[in-house]
Amino acid sequence: MYIRNIDPENFVSAYNVDLQLLYPWEGVVEPPFGAVWAVLAPGETTKPHAHQECETFVILKGRGMMSVGDERQAVGPGATTFHRPFDNHLLTNTSDSEELVFLSIFWEERERWADGGGESATEPTEPTVERVLVTAAPPTPNGDLHVGHLAGPYSNADFHARFLRLQGLEAHFVCGTDDNSIYVKTQGRAMGLSPEAAADHFAAGIIETLDAAGFDLAVFPRPNASPHHHRLTQEFFKTLYDGDHLEEREAPAPYCAACDQILFEAYIGGRCPGCDSGVVGNACEDCGLVYDPAEIVEPRCTTCGATPESRPAKRLFFPLSRHRETLREHYRHVSLTPHVRALVERLLADGLPDVAVTHWTDWGIEVPVPGYEAQRIFVWLEMAPRYFAYVEHLNDKLGGEGGWQRYWKGDGARIVQFFGYDNSFYYAALIPALLKAFDPEIRLPEALVTNEFYHLEGEKFSTSRDHRILGRDILAQEPRDAVRFYVAYTAPEREATNFVLDDFHATIDREIRQGWIGWLHGLGARLGEHYDGQVPATGDWTEDHRRFFQRLEGLLQEAAAGYAVPGFSPQRATRALTEIVREARRFAAGESHWQGVTTRTEEQRTAYALEVLAAKLLGLAAAPIMPDFAVALWRALGYPEGPGDGAWKDAFAWVPAGADATGLATAALLSR
Amino acid sequence: MYIRNIDPENFVSAYNVDLQLLYPWEGVVEPPFGAVWAVLAPGETTKPHAHQECETFVILKGRGMMSVGDERQAVGPGATTFHRPFDNHLLTNTSDSEELVFLSIFWEERERWADGGGESATEPTEPTVERVLVTAAPPTPNGDLHVGHLAGPYSNADFHARFLRLQGLEAHFVCGTDDNSIYVKTQGRAMGLSPEAAADHFAAGIIETLDAAGFDLAVFPRPNASPHHHRLTQEFFKTLYDGDHLEEREAPAPYCAACDQILFEAYIGGRCPGCDSGVVGNACEDCGLVYDPAEIVEPRCTTCGATPESRPAKRLFFPLSRHRETLREHYRHVSLTPHVRALVERLLADGLPDVAVTHWTDWGIEVPVPGYEAQRIFVWLEMAPRYFAYVEHLNDKLGGEGGWQRYWKGDGARIVQFFGYDNSFYYAALIPALLKAFDPEIRLPEALVTNEFYHLEGEKFSTSRDHRILGRDILAQEPRDAVRFYVAYTAPEREATNFVLDDFHATIDREIRQGWIGWLHGLGARLGEHYDGQVPATGDWTEDHRRFFQRLEGLLQEAAAGYAVPGFSPQRATRALTEIVREARRFAAGESHWQGVTTRTEEQRTAYALEVLAAKLLGLAAAPIMPDFAVALWRALGYPEGPGDGAWKDAFAWVPAGADATGLATAALLSR
Repeated sequence: MYIRNIDPENFVSAYNVDLQLLYPWEGVVEPPFGAVWAVLAPGETTKPHAHQECETFVILKGRGMMSVGDERQAVGPGATTFHRPFDNHLLTNTSDSEELVFLSIFWEERERWADGGGESATEPTEPTVERVLVTAAPPTPNGDLHVGHLAGPYSNADFHARFLRLQGLEAHFVCGTDDNSIYVKTQGRAMGLSPEAAADHFAAGIIETLDAAGFDLAVFPRPNASPHHHRLTQEFFKTLYDGDHLEEREAPAPYCAACDQILFEAYIGGRCPGCDSGVVGNACEDCGLVYDPAEIVEPRCTTCGATPESRPAKRLFFPLSRHRETLREHYRHVSLTPHVRALVERLLADGLPDVAVTHWTDWGIEVPVPGYEAQRIFVWLEMAPRYFAYVEHLNDKLGGEGGWQRYWKGDGARIVQFFGYDNSFYYAALIPALLKAFDPEIRLPEALVTNEFYHLEGEKFSTSRDHRILGRDILAQEPRDAVRFYVAYTAPEREATNFVLDDFHATIDREIRQGWIGWLHGLGARLGEHYDGQVPATGDWTEDHRRFFQRLEGLLQEAAAGYAVPGFSPQRATRALTEIVREARRFAAGESHWQGVTTRTEEQRTAYALEVLAAKLLGLAAAPIMPDFAVALWRALGYPEGPGDGAWKDAFAWVPAGADATGLATAALLSR
Repeated sequence: MYIRNIDPENFVSAYNVDLQLLYPWEGVVEPPFGAVWAVLAPGETTKPHAHQECETFVILKGRGMMSVGDERQAVGPGATTFHRPFDNHLLTNTSDSEELVFLSIFWEERERWADGGGESATEPTEPTVERVLVTAAPPTPNGDLHVGHLAGPYSNADFHARFLRLQGLEAHFVCGTDDNSIYVKTQGRAMGLSPEAAADHFAAGIIETLDAAGFDLAVFPRPNASPHHHRLTQEFFKTLYDGDHLEEREAPAPYCAACDQILFEAYIGGRCPGCDSGVVGNACEDCGLVYDPAEIVEPRCTTCGATPESRPAKRLFFPLSRHRETLREHYRHVSLTPHVRALVERLLADGLPDVAVTHWTDWGIEVPVPGYEAQRIFVWLEMAPRYFAYVEHLNDKLGGEGGWQRYWKGDGARIVQFFGYDNSFYYAALIPALLKAFDPEIRLPEALVTNEFYHLEGEKFSTSRDHRILGRDILAQEPRDAVRFYVAYTAPEREATNFVLDDFHATIDREIRQGWIGWLHGLGARLGEHYDGQVPATGDWTEDHRRFFQRLEGLLQEAAAGYAVPGFSPQRATRALTEIVREARRFAAGESHWQGVTTRTEEQRTAYALEVLAAKLLGLAAAPIMPDFAVALWRALGYPEGPGDGAWKDAFAWVPAGADATGLATAALLSR
């Protein structure tokens, strides 16, 4: 037991008062305040003083006159005064025989100081990260987004960026469209549209779907309408060329005589030289191999079906193998999913290919090098400076300074990139090598997070077989939070997973409607019944209360681990969410029995305060995945809005006692 | 100037103290602490309480006695106490005329309660516990066990005792039959059997079912065939009688003239005097109230249906109210589920009843007191020494020394009792009071763990309506591990839950057969393909490998938290098990890509060693609930047997490199 008694032998004199220091209590506790026991002799007055601390006097014994500034007031036992920082105050013992005894408690409140001062001269620490650029690979505007697309980089980047903002970081999810892909031109031709018209058509639909899905995109520029994109791309290319990082080379290329076209990307199909799967373009979706189109087995022209001949073609190449050590060093630091790590290890072992970075086409960005007027910059080279352009768009929007370097160079920033595994060669090998060749001082991403394919009912999504559910269609019918939850719950993190419509409905009904919302509405009804719909203050704690609180702490950490990189796992985050609800329901069922015990209202209050805290935490932890739910829930708990920037840091602050939670019983928590 | 005066008009009452809130001071300041002015009336005591805040009392006026934990100290004006978070503290005003006035200041220090707080660092550490007696309330041999019974104390006690043994403790699950209950006699009469024959008949069935369910009972004596039970019961009774703990009393009792029987327990039905539910016997299943049979509303004789008359009857009573302080002290230390804690607080507030401990019947154990030849000892008194007898049976079997005191007195042991909530009055009030009256030095249980009812498809199990599934029937059809898993997964821990046959099949198929076994068989096949069925040694570690290992550590702790008391939760343990499997599958999918990277066989080996470790840990963590699965899995991993005593301590020892896991691909892991 910790008890000290007042001992006049040990009084010290200060401010014309006899004092005994109560707090801080050395070796026992250093509370967020100091306290002294003070005895003022008959007829005496404390020295007038003003200090930076807030202070309160509680008069215990005797009678006196309190002065603050020009005001005076008589005080006796029980009187409590409060003095703001620098309030000039004094206390007089008005008795000529009795001591005036009072307690002084004082504490610092930095915000209350008019003019600061006293900033502690602590040493500067490591440069802290303030800004995070979160990117998702841009969609190609040659088709609509289906549910399979929603489960990939866009949702992952959105979950992650929202989580970082909740943690108090300035994080932006940036993306755009990949208009200069040859696939846009071929799709347009099939539809009788110019590439520009095809891109406009599909980009509009994509933007509509991304918006309907609630992806919080800071910027989403169309590259050919961007004031930055072409300029930065050509500067990037020119710098590489001028720095001798590109090599002109005449190499055999597949050529379709009927179409008079050197074939690459969308123009060519056949079988993968690595795994023999059917392929279109320069990379195999199945095994991830990236090859030169000249290597395709049984090649055919996708336009006319003819077998191409081989014809020497002059192009500029980026000899990736020169950057082996740069990449090896990058792989020592960057966080990679195992699939990507296995890929890059294979690349390092098998040899890095030379990559053609110009192609014979009239669609794309002009090559800023004489002699290449009939070629265009390869879209996967364009993918590197693309992210510079995003930053400049971000700066335009937010007034940020420093150009694209604001995120890509210097201190205080980091970059996380999300993309599908089939893009891994580019994001993990080509792009970092291009970036480092362009500027050895550039910042590379700290994490590359991939996903695997998301199938529909066990088979690949297919537009041609109409085996698909369009994002816009499901989002027109179902709450977007429901779709977002399900793609997180079944996220294709390490292997292909499935969207199964029946299971989607069953899961949302079981977990969210019955599980979460059933609990929350019940909690609201019980608050209404027992506390007039107001959140009670905590009272007395039982062992079960403490255990529940600790469990909530653990589960919030679980959710955070699922949202963070490395270790990013929406599956894990959703499991933590459902576990918060299961534990809260169990807790509430146990605590319900206090209702009949009139001597223990303090325990009942604590139980309800904890259950309300669990509801608040559910809203917070669900917010990255289910932003509408989070806002609706927090509002139902009496907050003016949903969890804001930095809310994770105050996660365990109690929902204020007295908050009006009347709406919780009936709140529409999952609605479109 | 900010001044407020104490105003007794505005005092609020809480914790048995009159309070005026000083801080936060609305509209003026919200300091980093709260403060109240508190007035404790002469002779009164604050409610003992523990909370998350640090707190200090400053005594201003009056005299009192401060208690923190087991320490006490007199306090007067100027005394300042400090209570750490969750320090259990109370203050008594020792004056009979003067108010005790004090100031309470409280504040949160999150770091101080993360590590549990409360427990005084100066206290000596508890003597090491070596032996744990785990008890389940004995079944009454008046019927068969149905699935509802399997989900209660027997499975909980079995899970807990098995877990303790895995942790390296000597833990025994002891139980027996409750043959002397009047329900045995009435059931026998309905069947035309003597009580002895009825008990023999049903006990045989019960033993068969408990055995089929895999409950590992160290002893399971029949009381009337026990060399210890009668002797210990009569000694216990005699000691209470000789110690003046029993009172002879003539009180009105319900009497059926037609049957010439004073009615109690099975003989009487009617409506609960507390909640008006239909009842049979001395306690209400619905509200938990225990009453004197004379209090039943609209009583009737269950034998003939007649309304009983009231007749004075002489019996011996145990005046429970005399033991109020003993019980209060017990409740300060014992771990109770919230439902039981609410019950005991209600009992303390409403008054403890006097309990008749002899009854007018010829069935049961003779009362060892002259003049009571026509009566028998109440079965709920017999329930206290019953557990002494179990220990003596245990000693007979294992050669343990020290008689029943081996667990019930002295150092090195502890006791955990499992029972259904409807027995709470007896286990939480009557029995501890009887035990302490019998021997003040006796050890009381450290934890009382209750369960709620387990229903069948949403309705109570009912033999009369044939709404039931017998334990023996389902255990004849389904693997016992499947039944045990499902009752754990849906355990009625804090509220009634359901056995739903369709959901049982669906859950076992989804979670166990497809989830667990699908993964394990796949792992076995892959080990066969790549390592000739032998467990590889670890090699090089990636970041993902470390993260997975840490995740496994966390999940094993999760499972342990679910099996331990306090906090016992089979639901939680099963969630940890399924999460081990989900994480392992995810990990394996990611790591599968190393297969193609010939330069990185070391990473592949580590990945497989980790996946095999996850399989081993699943077997270990599942062992308390699914012992057959654990044995089959460990054998398939090359161990000679399943997880043995103390295996939890070596949980993270690698499955030995080179171990033959050939059988894992096809092992029968869930079979009868």
